[in-house]
Amino acid sequence: MESLKDYFSQQKLYINDKLIQYVYEYTDPGRLQDAMLYSIEAGGKRLRPILLMSTAEAFGAEEKRTLAAACALEMIHTYSLIHDDLPSMDNDDLRRGKPTSHIMFDEATATLAGDALLTLSFQVISEDPNLEDGEKVYLLRELASASGARGMVAGQMHDMQSEDRHIPLHELETIHKNKTGKLIRFAILAGAYLGQASEESMDQMKVMGDALGLIFQIQDDILDVTGDADVLGKPTGSDENNLKSTYPKLLGLDGAIQQKANYVDSAQNALRSAGVDGTLLSELIHYLSSRDR
Amino acid sequence: MESLKDYFSQQKLYINDKLIQYVYEYTDPGRLQDAMLYSIEAGGKRLRPILLMSTAEAFGAEEKRTLAAACALEMIHTYSLIHDDLPSMDNDDLRRGKPTSHIMFDEATATLAGDALLTLSFQVISEDPNLEDGEKVYLLRELASASGARGMVAGQMHDMQSEDRHIPLHELETIHKNKTGKLIRFAILAGAYLGQASEESMDQMKVMGDALGLIFQIQDDILDVTGDADVLGKPTGSDENNLKSTYPKLLGLDGAIQQKANYVDSAQNALRSAGVDGTLLSELIHYLSSRDR
Repeated sequence: MESLKDYFSQQKLYINDKLIQYVYEYTDPGRLQDAMLYSIEAGGKRLRPILLMSTAEAFGAEEKRTLAAACALEMIHTYSLIHDDLPSMDNDDLRRGKPTSHIMFDEATATLAGDALLTLSFQVISEDPNLEDGEKVYLLRELASASGARGMVAGQMHDMQSEDRHIPLHELETIHKNKTGKLIRFAILAGAYLGQASEESMDQMKVMGDALGLIFQIQDDILDVTGDADVLGKPTGSDENNLKSTYPKLLGLDGAIQQKANYVDSAQNALRSAGVDGTLLSELIHYLSSRDR
Repeated sequence: MESLKDYFSQQKLYINDKLIQYVYEYTDPGRLQDAMLYSIEAGGKRLRPILLMSTAEAFGAEEKRTLAAACALEMIHTYSLIHDDLPSMDNDDLRRGKPTSHIMFDEATATLAGDALLTLSFQVISEDPNLEDGEKVYLLRELASASGARGMVAGQMHDMQSEDRHIPLHELETIHKNKTGKLIRFAILAGAYLGQASEESMDQMKVMGDALGLIFQIQDDILDVTGDADVLGKPTGSDENNLKSTYPKLLGLDGAIQQKANYVDSAQNALRSAGVDGTLLSELIHYLSSRDR
């Protein structure tokens, strides 16, 4: 696993550099740029772009052809965090120990920085010199679909509407599939597409992407029960104290762990069928399902 | 002018239908869809899509090839109104006599409906069956550029930062060029592009688009001084009562009228040079510069 951690750290630095470079390239100095940079530089695991680039690598794509899509994806993720943190949404003052955008700047600036990052994500793909027009259209279409009114935004809306009530497992899965799953699925699909995977492999990678999104979410819920607050960098047990539905609450802790194992099997099987099971992606599935933060 | 009004009314109905159709096609029933439809159906002049379609017609484009770009443009305009009306931005409770989105729904829903409309604008272009990939990429790139961190969002940010201070004319023009001008310019450019205008004509239409944006804004400022509140559907004299810079304040009313006339000349000259001066576009320039609402 040490090599995977090294790979993660290295890719993270690489993606951070490129993200910051994009913001400077497409914005002018001032408060809006400051706010965009602040949230981009606030860090995070860069999981989504790393997944995209690893998948592309597994299918043999040139790295430079993946950067625009990888960074666009992270911009969408970043804008969604800025807007989700707003007082009218989750009302969070801190993220990863740092003041959220509307605390550091103000609500109006945070709203606009989010809008600008969302718009920029489409701009960097449409202007990328390393992609053909047909590839740009595919990526733009899939990214818009994954992040819009039947994707991430739908998930956030649904999540807010179910905050104070118990919901059944199938509804919980629908929320996660939209809110976090569709961007993770996009990472996998876009990577396979850029690596010119066959149609059959693309179908398998869709299964893998969906499973990976749920693995990620179940582990999130499990860590809220069993995790170490110091390692996680956020308090645990928060789900227990509200009505929010989680996998451990709906299935019990053992049931949630079993459910996760089922999705891990399904994801590994899909990798095998797509002919990329000997790659870093296998390790990534294992890493995401057993992560402690 | 009667025929122009008929044309406007007819195009407006046509665009309204298509916009609503897009929202139904790309969203699912529920609160998010309700909020998106509410703002889309709240109306407005549909000036931007009408400009795009008129320009395309002047250059001989098929109407069906213009609809996605025209509606995408109006979605961007609509999302910007929803976010601008939020309490942290302009804090408006009413728009065109109806409750704004965050009053009708709530702030979180309004924020998400705006995000979803912004995302949808890129989606409808990328999925349009009547456009080639190269055309989609051109439209997506120009739309993102016009509406992002060096376009509309920059203008809104700059406008907020200059609300309580006097600014010189050149700064006022920069704000308007970004905040309203770039989307109007996009309407003109996208229309000419879809009509396969020559490179020389495209350059002329850029001049025309920039002039038209300023004509629109100067007339807005003039109407705030000389307009009839009943016809406008909003109170007049509001600019006088705050520090906000306007053309009449900086140039005097006569100076503002003269400045507008200069831009009208420049726009009409550009139309002539582009070879489309005998079209509806000439009438549109006249209409926009002398509108009473």
